[in-house]
Formats: sequence, C-alpha cells, structure tokens
Amino acid sequence: MSRDRISHRDGHVYEFAPAMDPVYEAADGESLTIETVDSLNGAIQTDDDLLDAIPEEVNAATGPIAVAGASPGDVLAVEIEDVRVTEDVGRVLTAPGFGLLQDDPDIDHPATRITEVDAESDGSSGGIDFEGIDVPIEPVIGTIGVATAEETVSTLTPDDHGGNLDTTDMTAGTTAYFPVFQEGAMLAMGDSKAAMADGEMCGTGAEIGTEIDVTLSVIEAPEIPLRRPLVDTGDAVKTIASAPTMEEAAELANRDAVRLLAHEHGFSRTEAYLFSSLVGGLEISQVVDPQVTVRNAVPSEHLSVPF
Amino acid sequence: MSRDRISHRDGHVYEFAPAMDPVYEAADGESLTIETVDSLNGAIQTDDDLLDAIPEEVNAATGPIAVAGASPGDVLAVEIEDVRVTEDVGRVLTAPGFGLLQDDPDIDHPATRITEVDAESDGSSGGIDFEGIDVPIEPVIGTIGVATAEETVSTLTPDDHGGNLDTTDMTAGTTAYFPVFQEGAMLAMGDSKAAMADGEMCGTGAEIGTEIDVTLSVIEAPEIPLRRPLVDTGDAVKTIASAPTMEEAAELANRDAVRLLAHEHGFSRTEAYLFSSLVGGLEISQVVDPQVTVRNAVPSEHLSVPF
Repeated sequence: MSRDRISHRDGHVYEFAPAMDPVYEAADGESLTIETVDSLNGAIQTDDDLLDAIPEEVNAATGPIAVAGASPGDVLAVEIEDVRVTEDVGRVLTAPGFGLLQDDPDIDHPATRITEVDAESDGSSGGIDFEGIDVPIEPVIGTIGVATAEETVSTLTPDDHGGNLDTTDMTAGTTAYFPVFQEGAMLAMGDSKAAMADGEMCGTGAEIGTEIDVTLSVIEAPEIPLRRPLVDTGDAVKTIASAPTMEEAAELANRDAVRLLAHEHGFSRTEAYLFSSLVGGLEISQVVDPQVTVRNAVPSEHLSVPF
Repeated sequence: MSRDRISHRDGHVYEFAPAMDPVYEAADGESLTIETVDSLNGAIQTDDDLLDAIPEEVNAATGPIAVAGASPGDVLAVEIEDVRVTEDVGRVLTAPGFGLLQDDPDIDHPATRITEVDAESDGSSGGIDFEGIDVPIEPVIGTIGVATAEETVSTLTPDDHGGNLDTTDMTAGTTAYFPVFQEGAMLAMGDSKAAMADGEMCGTGAEIGTEIDVTLSVIEAPEIPLRRPLVDTGDAVKTIASAPTMEEAAELANRDAVRLLAHEHGFSRTEAYLFSSLVGGLEISQVVDPQVTVRNAVPSEHLSVPF
C-alpha cells in the first residue's frame, strides 16, 4: 500500500493554535506515515546530556495536516495502525521544576539515563534496556491534537484539542477521535516514547523518534457533539480530559462518559452516572504537564463510539 | 479446612482508632472466614429507599481481630482467598453532597438502583443486573484496615492504616499488607461491593454483604518499614496512598514505589524514580471519600514484596 510520508523535517509545530498552516493536505480516508523526532529534538544522546530546564520549544509535533472536508463541529478519526521506533536509544530524564517528585532532595534534577533499544524488525516490539533491566517496547504517541478553538496552546500542554495528552492508549490498534474546531482539522503529532508508565511521573517516558501509520477520516455532523478527545482501544472506549487538577479532569472525563452511556443505553443521566460507577473506571494518563490528564474507561461491551 | 467465622453480628466498628477491643484473637497464620454486612446496614432494599445523607455510622467493618504476635513496626499480611456475595441484591446510589458529580443539576441526589444478583454457586462469579445490563460480579472489599497510630478515623475515610480504600484490587487472589501500629494489629473489614469501577464515581459500587476467606500472618521486623497499605495481586505490586488531593496521593504512592524499587534493584532514588516512569504506573482507586486514594502499580516481574 503506497502512502505518503510526512516528516518533522517537512514541518512541525510547537503550538496548537486556531490558525495553522498545513504542511500537507490529506484526502478524507487517506492513509499516511508520519515521522516524528524525539521530544527534545535529539539534544540528549548520553547520560551526561542534562536538561537544565524544559526548553521553550519542546514536543515538536509533525504537521499540521489538513484533512479535506473537515469543518468545525465534525469529528476527526485517527486510526493508529502502527507506531515504530526509529532510533536505537530512548531517553528518560528529570529536569528542575518538572515531574511529580521535583521537590525530593534525594532525587537528582537534572538526571538522564539513555535506554538502549533492541527493537524487533517490525520496529514496534522488542525491548529497551534500563540499567540492565529489559522493559518491553510499547510505543506511545505523547502529543497528538488538532487546531484549537480559540487559544494558542504549547505542545507541552494538553487540553480539549488534544496536545500533550501523554496517554498510553495512543498506540497501534487505537482509533482516536478529536473534535474539529477549524477547517481542515490540522492534525499534528510527536513526542513519542518507546515505553511510558501511566502517570509519566518523572516527566518523560523513554523519549524516541518514531514513524506512525495512520488513516484519517472525517465524521460529519456526529450524532452527539464531541468536546474532548476520545479513544477506542478495541477493549474499551475512553473519554480523555485535561484540567488544572486531577479532580477537575476526573470530573470532566466522567461527565463525558455519562453523556455517552446515556446516549447508548437510553439511560437518564442519573442512571448513566450510577452505571459508570460499576464498570471500567477512571485512569490516570499523566500528572506532570501544565494540565493533568485523566481518562474514564468503559469496556467495549457496554459502550461504543457513537459516530 | 475448618476455620472460625467472625460475623458483623459478633462485632463491628465504625472507626479505626489507636485503642480497639478485639472481638476475636487469631493465631499467627490462622485462616478465618469473615462475614460483612453491606455498607448501609441493609437500610436500602428497593429503588424507593433513598439516602438523604451519608449516615454517621457507615461502612460497618467486622472485627477488630487481634493477631497474636503483631507489634508496632511489624507488617500484617492478609491473604484474601475468596470473597463471596451473600445477598441477591446490591445497591448503587447517590446521596446529596457525595460523589464526583454531586453538583450536576441533571443528576438526582438522592437516587437508588437495586441490582439483582445472579451469583454462581461459588458466590464469587456470575452477574448483577443494572437496568437490564449484565455486569460481571467482581467482588471488592471496600473498607479494610488496622488500628491507627494516633488519630481516630471514621470507616468512611482512608488513610495510612487502610480503612475506606475502595480499591478494586482488594479481592480474591490478592495479598494485602498493612503497617502494624498497635499490639495485635486489630484488623477489620466490610463495605464490600459486587462490582465497582475504579474511581467509585457516584460514591458507591453495588453495595452488598459478603463472606471473605483470609489467612493472617505477621511479618516481624520487615527489611524495610511499611508506611501505608501495599497489595500483591499476583500480576503487580501496588503501593496505595490516601490524601486530601489526588496530586498528593499520587506523590505518596510514587514515593513508596520508588523506595521499593530502589531496595529491590539497588538503584539510587533517582534511578528508581526514572524507572517508575517507564513501567506500570499510577491508578485511581477512588475519588469520592473524605480522602482520595491512588495506587502506583509495578509489574511483578520488576518488583516483589520485600517481606
């Protein structure tokens, strides 16, 4: 299958904004391969390369890609078919003023560990080595989103447009859905990891360059409006919400799940809320970015994507 | 195997305190069956039974059980062998001023739905019916803990002694570890659910009476001190922390995981922190109690219980 490739060398952004200039115009239904650079643009190559501060330009997101026919109010479906690592090292690191335990006097800020990557030929399995421990490669797209409704948002920050969601579900086999706020949607992605814990506690996973196979589709006039990102992993449908605190993010994610459950089952909001408290549940994406991100997972047997 | 039974009718508490009077004295290594009443003491039997407020006495915890030889600084291991539901109904409900979406004007507070329970003969599998939807029975012990170090804490509140942890891992196959703060440890448990989502968003799961098979063991002079509850699910070792905010709970849970990872692998705290950001990760237990509860899960291949 021939598919065009779009590289970070063709174009990348450090902000999601209402007005973005596309580096590529995709047809509705087009399949592409997107090349991404690691979140620190290759600046960290040995354990001695330390990050004294989070750079102003971080999480370069390849794109944006305009998708033909996408208009405000539509939904952009991004079917993630494969995520392959394209380097033989990842980087896991701390930086001053960043990360869950940034105030711990016994933890060095900055600190870097290079993780050697021993990928299988498929590029998406194999292991990475952390100080002699083998950790399975489970690639994650850290930053993925679309043009915003109004604000200009750094690629370090997640919000309703997506962005730095740092969500382990953003990987092969998942279809991600984003609200379209601007003509063409303007999809961009980068900041991949070879592996990442839910929470991304130290502020990074094993940061690495990747190539990502996706198919992009526009869903016009969805049955119910999409306000924030949503993923279908095959096993579960998960709402994703970012906010200043975890409590606020949890509330938004649960509210969105309640809305979907009410729609699917013909429940009242009260019934949908009660049901949400019985199956699946709240999951942490990340707790370290300028806004934090929480999911509400519902098993696929109880919730389908409504568009 | 003959084992003694201890019922909530023999004794139960609504508070974990430094000084508690045991209803039973168990030998180190003894196996017991513990009977628990539902968190609302049977007050809710139909959809018309509404809870106008969380009662002052809620989450009756059967016990306390003194375990011979348990002294402050030790660890109490509670091997949970089975949790069987003992009623044919569960209750999922809202109450005013309680739950994640308590301020949503379109959600009724109070509201009750009775879930009919169709358990298999083993009592721990089968399904519950929520408005025609079959939800698998996956029992959870909501409240489980030991005598506190200093404060007296309602069974509605989780803290370092355990208590209302509302953690889905508290089920058959898990061994739970608690710090011993007082002579005899003084274990008590109750507040079981037939099913519960991670987060327990509406404030309850499907509340139900259960009988719980456990084996209790004292670990004297542990290699490293235990400050808060810990579980070994067989697949993962998880630290459990409760605090006023999710951010604080996440920080404590990660700090405990970092300490265990450093001990296990001979890592510096920095290395252990970096490694914690690559595998497993943060999980939400509940977001609705007077303190919230977060776990840090590490896959069993990378972390064992150090005692």
